[in-house]
Amino acid sequence: MTQLQEMGAKAKEAARLLAVAGKQKDEALEAIAKALEENAETLLAANRQDLQAAEESGMSRSLMDRLALNEKRIQGMADGVRQVAAQPDPIGQVLEGGVRPNGLRIEKVAVPLGVIGIIYEARPNVTADAAALCLKAGNAVILRGGKEAFRSNQAIAEVMRGAVEAAGLPKDSIQLVQDTSRASSVEMMGLTGYLDVLIPRGGAGLIRAVVENSHVPVIETGVGNCHVYVDDAADLHMAEEIIFNAKTSRPSVCNAIETVLVHRAVAEQALPRIKAKLDEKQVEIRGCEETCRILPSCVPACEEDWATEYLDYILAVKVVDSLDDAMAHIARYSSGHSECIVTENYHHAERFLSEVDAAAVYVNASTRFTDGGEFGLGAEIGISTQKLHARGPMGIRQLTSQKFVIRGNGQIR
Amino acid sequence: MTQLQEMGAKAKEAARLLAVAGKQKDEALEAIAKALEENAETLLAANRQDLQAAEESGMSRSLMDRLALNEKRIQGMADGVRQVAAQPDPIGQVLEGGVRPNGLRIEKVAVPLGVIGIIYEARPNVTADAAALCLKAGNAVILRGGKEAFRSNQAIAEVMRGAVEAAGLPKDSIQLVQDTSRASSVEMMGLTGYLDVLIPRGGAGLIRAVVENSHVPVIETGVGNCHVYVDDAADLHMAEEIIFNAKTSRPSVCNAIETVLVHRAVAEQALPRIKAKLDEKQVEIRGCEETCRILPSCVPACEEDWATEYLDYILAVKVVDSLDDAMAHIARYSSGHSECIVTENYHHAERFLSEVDAAAVYVNASTRFTDGGEFGLGAEIGISTQKLHARGPMGIRQLTSQKFVIRGNGQIR
Repeated sequence: MTQLQEMGAKAKEAARLLAVAGKQKDEALEAIAKALEENAETLLAANRQDLQAAEESGMSRSLMDRLALNEKRIQGMADGVRQVAAQPDPIGQVLEGGVRPNGLRIEKVAVPLGVIGIIYEARPNVTADAAALCLKAGNAVILRGGKEAFRSNQAIAEVMRGAVEAAGLPKDSIQLVQDTSRASSVEMMGLTGYLDVLIPRGGAGLIRAVVENSHVPVIETGVGNCHVYVDDAADLHMAEEIIFNAKTSRPSVCNAIETVLVHRAVAEQALPRIKAKLDEKQVEIRGCEETCRILPSCVPACEEDWATEYLDYILAVKVVDSLDDAMAHIARYSSGHSECIVTENYHHAERFLSEVDAAAVYVNASTRFTDGGEFGLGAEIGISTQKLHARGPMGIRQLTSQKFVIRGNGQIR
Repeated sequence: MTQLQEMGAKAKEAARLLAVAGKQKDEALEAIAKALEENAETLLAANRQDLQAAEESGMSRSLMDRLALNEKRIQGMADGVRQVAAQPDPIGQVLEGGVRPNGLRIEKVAVPLGVIGIIYEARPNVTADAAALCLKAGNAVILRGGKEAFRSNQAIAEVMRGAVEAAGLPKDSIQLVQDTSRASSVEMMGLTGYLDVLIPRGGAGLIRAVVENSHVPVIETGVGNCHVYVDDAADLHMAEEIIFNAKTSRPSVCNAIETVLVHRAVAEQALPRIKAKLDEKQVEIRGCEETCRILPSCVPACEEDWATEYLDYILAVKVVDSLDDAMAHIARYSSGHSECIVTENYHHAERFLSEVDAAAVYVNASTRFTDGGEFGLGAEIGISTQKLHARGPMGIRQLTSQKFVIRGNGQIR
């Protein structure tokens, strides 16, 4: 048995107990939150070692910022864990049920997925966030974080494992992979029989690698090439506000927009206004030919721009001839995350909602709302863009499976 | 572009139209049913060619029987298609929804999965059954059947495509892969970007190969190493009836049982009765040491027997010391399909239901009920044994995904 297979076996055993743990899971989560607060100094010390090594290796400032812990961020982790504890327990919920003509009582009941693997990158807070969500839904978790954050992740995981054990649940409900080389990540993708699902959290490169290579079922999250389409019947002031918000309120996240499509009939009027607003934040516009004609100062877009998730203060802009034209562009380039139409036309709005295929489709609102909290679903482990299992924000309920429970009195077929 | 990629592109285009097709889908299904009936002679002629080639290649009688069509089987296909048409349309159903404090109206709505690939073996009726289920749920389907049934599948597919087109939907809603070599199957497993999900239907070998090698998300169906546990508090007459039914009513299907576990306290009394009943159908018993002591005529079981899905008149039998012992055996060897306890003890029943992890868990009823029709869910494409997406009978509703539809009036975040 390899080390990861051993971890898998321990996780399966823990998962069997977690599946029937009920209220104890919330006690463990409360214990974790408290332990994170009480051990803040230990966590900060471990994090300082990671930061020092990162600095010596010449890590960029923005990556260093992701890696860094401080009192406030640790408090944020603890608060997050308590919020997860406060949500209702999804396990055991009867999703549907009834009595069959032969007297069999059949219920479909929510159960944990089992063992969840998470492969993630530099942010150590994922260690606590992901573990809390998995635990709440009765799942054991095997965490494989990036090597830059290893000491921080290790310290957080140890604090959590101790708290879980003190609360009477198996400490192997949460395990951290000790090997942070590429090999462990590859081995996890082949750990069928132990892992029920694998969730990559990080950049597009990581996610693509896991989706393309994993034999364990994957939940694909987080890639967002999102669009706002400004219809010929749009309220242009609203369009301007929505575009500004969706592009600039937090450009680095997956629900930020990357391309704006503008109906030709309103392009002359809308584009200068949109540009003026985006200039407040120095957003670079890469435009199609018609956009560049109307806005001579903008950079000409090439084919690649339509497919790019910039995650930056850059926006691709294209003038389209019709709603159909806009929807065809979206069908071709969208990653199926969040898509928005700005329009006052009822028929256009309903067609867009019905025909555009994405996790979230909007009329007259910023795509930035695609988020578990904003949707009222609670904390999430990511936004799923795949069709299977769950699409959209992956909250606690999306970390469950189901089983059919059948009560009979001797029925045979 | 390869031929399969071209089919994928056509399927995607068809799926875009199917997603908003509504009532027309039922008209297409009715047209398919009628066309199958009217073209029975053509289908039988194609099937005779397949049968002749099969006979020349020395195919076994049981495989020949699976491959054979006749008037009754064709009528069965047509009836099956009409039953699918008669079910409610799952698409557009609002699964949940409400208004957020900021006024956003958010609904989670059922949408098609998109393009479904089906890889299957010798039964030509799968061509019609699977296509009808996919179409009803608004999905385009790419069918890749076995080479033994190619002429039959081709004839059925052509009849269906014609009917779909006559009903005003794209004929590429249903496509049959023309290449039945291993290569086409392997290529389908890598057809990400075109296929949203791949469903293997057939023997354990096929399913394992697809699960282990596919990069397209897979729904794993149909492997059933199912158990009946006879508790110390069992009604032994009921146990005997359930075991007899679950083993012998149709041994070749996935919801038939393969192993019986008997509590030591009732083994002396129960085993001779169970054996006497099973003798009516000449079931071979492979027993543990204690079973062989009580039933000296039975074959000693080896380790492999506990893990084997016989799909035949063979049953493994083991004496266990307790409910925990039984559940540990099931946790180790079960394929997570259907598991049953026979008991009159309330506490044992509830523990078994809650702790055993399988698609369907039973108290006092035959595992043979794990079936879409028997559960009241309508026709199914298989029984899923995986945790992700859907577990248990995969009916029309399980062939859907979802999207969030958000209606705003200018909200920004």
